[in-house]
Amino acid sequence: MNVTVRGRKQSYRTVAFDRARNAVLLIEQRLLPHEFKIVATKNFRETAGAIHDMIVRGAPAIAATAAYGVAQGALAFRGCDLQKFSRHIEIVYQTLKAARPTAVDPVNAMNGVRAAMRAGRTVAEQQSLTLAAAEEFASEDVRHCEEIGRHGAKLIRSGMNILTHCNAGWLACVDIGTATAPMYAAQAQGKKFHVFCDETRPRSQGATLTAWELAQQRISHQVIADSAAGHLMQRGEIDLVIVGSDRTLGRTGEVANKIGTYTKAVLAKRHGIPFYVAIPLSTIDWNLKRGFDIPIEERHESEVLGAWGVAGRQKGGKRIYVRVANPTSGARNPGFDVTPPELITGIITPVGIFKPRELWKRRRALGFAN
Amino acid sequence: MNVTVRGRKQSYRTVAFDRARNAVLLIEQRLLPHEFKIVATKNFRETAGAIHDMIVRGAPAIAATAAYGVAQGALAFRGCDLQKFSRHIEIVYQTLKAARPTAVDPVNAMNGVRAAMRAGRTVAEQQSLTLAAAEEFASEDVRHCEEIGRHGAKLIRSGMNILTHCNAGWLACVDIGTATAPMYAAQAQGKKFHVFCDETRPRSQGATLTAWELAQQRISHQVIADSAAGHLMQRGEIDLVIVGSDRTLGRTGEVANKIGTYTKAVLAKRHGIPFYVAIPLSTIDWNLKRGFDIPIEERHESEVLGAWGVAGRQKGGKRIYVRVANPTSGARNPGFDVTPPELITGIITPVGIFKPRELWKRRRALGFAN
Repeated sequence: MNVTVRGRKQSYRTVAFDRARNAVLLIEQRLLPHEFKIVATKNFRETAGAIHDMIVRGAPAIAATAAYGVAQGALAFRGCDLQKFSRHIEIVYQTLKAARPTAVDPVNAMNGVRAAMRAGRTVAEQQSLTLAAAEEFASEDVRHCEEIGRHGAKLIRSGMNILTHCNAGWLACVDIGTATAPMYAAQAQGKKFHVFCDETRPRSQGATLTAWELAQQRISHQVIADSAAGHLMQRGEIDLVIVGSDRTLGRTGEVANKIGTYTKAVLAKRHGIPFYVAIPLSTIDWNLKRGFDIPIEERHESEVLGAWGVAGRQKGGKRIYVRVANPTSGARNPGFDVTPPELITGIITPVGIFKPRELWKRRRALGFAN
Repeated sequence: MNVTVRGRKQSYRTVAFDRARNAVLLIEQRLLPHEFKIVATKNFRETAGAIHDMIVRGAPAIAATAAYGVAQGALAFRGCDLQKFSRHIEIVYQTLKAARPTAVDPVNAMNGVRAAMRAGRTVAEQQSLTLAAAEEFASEDVRHCEEIGRHGAKLIRSGMNILTHCNAGWLACVDIGTATAPMYAAQAQGKKFHVFCDETRPRSQGATLTAWELAQQRISHQVIADSAAGHLMQRGEIDLVIVGSDRTLGRTGEVANKIGTYTKAVLAKRHGIPFYVAIPLSTIDWNLKRGFDIPIEERHESEVLGAWGVAGRQKGGKRIYVRVANPTSGARNPGFDVTPPELITGIITPVGIFKPRELWKRRRALGFAN
């Protein structure tokens, strides 16, 4: 998407590859929204470090980063011994896999790249196939987000006020995003609308990343406290809710997403406001049989007890942690919650919008593998 | 309530009067939870300044402060000319009234003090009646909170998990508090329970003031993000909700309270969890006919866009403001919302627990004046 840096507008992807330098190019997300910087990782170990240190985050974005990391590792290999090359790739793969051990998307992406690679008969052929497969993975992610945008844009009319929670934007993908894709597509169609970004405590991804994205694309928006949406719905100030998902159960239509999503769905239902979830296909879990079994990460209490920000009101500058809460109190910090299908109006996928309980019936179209 | 400062436990009121020094004693709430300090205002102008600068906040607490401020002004008068004394009191009254012009509680409290004063035939008599009336006002507030505690404690059983939102604690009253009163009373009865304090963004009164109060009283508690309660309710981890109120409509049973209260009431209803509102009688508005007409204060966007805290993880220290959100984004910041009576299990008052729609029928007992 377009980013304006020091008055100059330029198009960026969250994750890209520089062939000349054999480098993975990443937006340094830990500095956002206060500073925009592109990081170029020099080798696959640095790429793994960037995933581990959360320079890049968001399942589709780290999957593309890992895929490019495999290509980067492959291209750095010197020689023509296929066995040595294969052992080298195994090290690259394991290093990247270990960077975020719980995420399944990077593993799937790297498996795809490795499978494509094996069609080559020489090291040189395998190297170029690896890069082609990584590029194709990234391009497919972009195409899927474009399709989500195309389907989702139909839900947006000019004059609407849209609520979103957390960041399911282009920073979490290679480009365009999932929950934001319908907004960007609707904007391209000339529709004018307003977005309320839930702050999304405790990590404030809505106030930082989503607000930054929308500001860059010049989409009218305001940050609200997570507690404010109910009041705005009561007063008729929210017409549509679109959120992303960290895991969607293909068998039941239950949606796990950032803590607070369930609350917004309950409120939307009470007020008769359509509640949509935008997902890439990689988010669908075809195995789990009930949402209650989705493991809910309990994160560190310091996130709830304080906040990260820039001191004073100046722009730019280094973020610091401040302790907000009473120093002798602790916190509970569940990171996700599960929204049941009866609260979800529709799931926006790259192949169309479905009722949550329809996913299983549509499993072939949605990439169900078995 | 008891406060432990440097290892020494001592009992304090939020607002008290020191006859020897003719000073109003206030807990400096802007330093909490990081520092505990008592401020003594030397004259009625300083007392008005303390209300204006929010050293003391919370409707019952500022009402008592204003009442003591009138007594403080009266006692500082030298001479025996009743007319001059009366003109002096008028200045005192207007100065204190102007400190927080929108609050009605201090005006009601001062009117009561002034009415009592007029029974005196000399300046000396009027001076001592003024102080007696201010002391009686403060004592009545404490008695009412005790009664709220007595009624509300019946709702609490050992082993319960209780959710509260914002701070309707003793820091908002002269002592004991409203939403916290049932907890303190239940604790005194030997009941063991756990309290989840909603952080209460954007001003974080739950994470700062309520958590501090509960820590001081050694009540088991944890701070949670405002978005987390829905998930905890889904998992059966919340048994009871008690909140305070900024204005309760006697005719309809609608409750205006800190932004986010409505959301918690909607969630509690969905999960069949009892939702109670604890109120002093001064909170009841007998005039307004519908909650939609309650003016909802839109506060400054900087509250939503940043946070106040102490840098690093050390205890104590000065609070600073950090900008959390994207620097080019704005915010909406409604300060309150209105909860309809059908979501409220009961209203805990000093004279008993009532269904919200019963208030009007019980208006004589609840102090309805006309």
